[in-house]
Amino acid sequence: MPHTAHEKKRVLTRVRRIMGQAEALERALESGADCGPVLQQIAAIRGAVNGLMSEVMEAHIREEFGQPATSEAQRQARVEEMTGLVRSYLK
Amino acid sequence: MPHTAHEKKRVLTRVRRIMGQAEALERALESGADCGPVLQQIAAIRGAVNGLMSEVMEAHIREEFGQPATSEAQRQARVEEMTGLVRSYLK
Amino acid sequence: MPHTAHEKKRVLTRVRRIMGQAEALERALESGADCGPVLQQIAAIRGAVNGLMSEVMEAHIREEFGQPATSEAQRQARVEEMTGLVRSYLK
Amino acid sequence: MPHTAHEKKRVLTRVRRIMGQAEALERALESGADCGPVLQQIAAIRGAVNGLMSEVMEAHIREEFGQPATSEAQRQARVEEMTGLVRSYLK
Repeated sequence: MPHTAHEKKRVLTRVRRIMGQAEALERALESGADCGPVLQQIAAIRGAVNGLMSEVMEAHIREEFGQPATSEAQRQARVEEMTGLVRSYLK
Repeated sequence: MPHTAHEKKRVLTRVRRIMGQAEALERALESGADCGPVLQQIAAIRGAVNGLMSEVMEAHIREEFGQPATSEAQRQARVEEMTGLVRSYLK
Repeated sequence: MPHTAHEKKRVLTRVRRIMGQAEALERALESGADCGPVLQQIAAIRGAVNGLMSEVMEAHIREEFGQPATSEAQRQARVEEMTGLVRSYLK
Repeated sequence: MPHTAHEKKRVLTRVRRIMGQAEALERALESGADCGPVLQQIAAIRGAVNGLMSEVMEAHIREEFGQPATSEAQRQARVEEMTGLVRSYLK
């Protein structure tokens, strides 16, 4: 998960961007950058991580609810799983 | 929304608890409480607001996906709406 | 805390605005408003609570560090208290 | 910033841990891991980024306020800078 090649690529691109941001932050810290710019870099990483989480959740919603459930039990299981994910990560 | 009487009551109970917390905070500020306890009260309100948002999202997921869509167009519209909500509020 | 009359008024104004937002949300839920607008109202309250927390922290920083400490021990105690507050609430 | 060798090492350790977590996430995504564990990994990264931000803020507070200001103007400038950082990043 995510399942389509397109979504997988989008998510991996986001993860690699975060890795690049973390490397840039490492270099900034090693070279003794000021606190203000360092915090700005960390805040940008935080934003990127939130964007990644949203992207994975959206892909999961499309996957789970984009086609009809094969049974009532499956539908209810999907609904339970999704509400559990929202409860865990919406904070 | 939320649609069942039970869910509506749960959500309203949460909103009223937040109102009570805000009133207690108002009294604490008026009586000159210390910064530490005041920040603790504000953090508790923040937690309660996040819990409320999660509860409303969960109710909406149950409502939208708990029964089969009546058409493919409706299913896709629901998926689009839900991914948009996650994108807007998961942060 | 906060200590000046001006800051106290600003903080109380924010708390009362949050109470007004919670009341508007209660009315919206009672009248059966749609999920989208309800979530928007909740997100606005969340933003207001974050703004309130920031305002109280800022007032506390001004209070604690706006004048010289009377002793080295007091200075260190203030620094410890402030780092503890940041650790608790920056999340 | 942070300025002491000890603090710099602690902060760099946190950044490298985040890089390791991002690499593990990349591998999980490439091998087609399920959505639940993937979201758990992303949430762990989010927590680590918040911890890093707090650590940098705390080091900055110690640096700025751990010793007396050399002038009233410097003290006020430090207070202004710190309140600005709290306003920008406490959310």
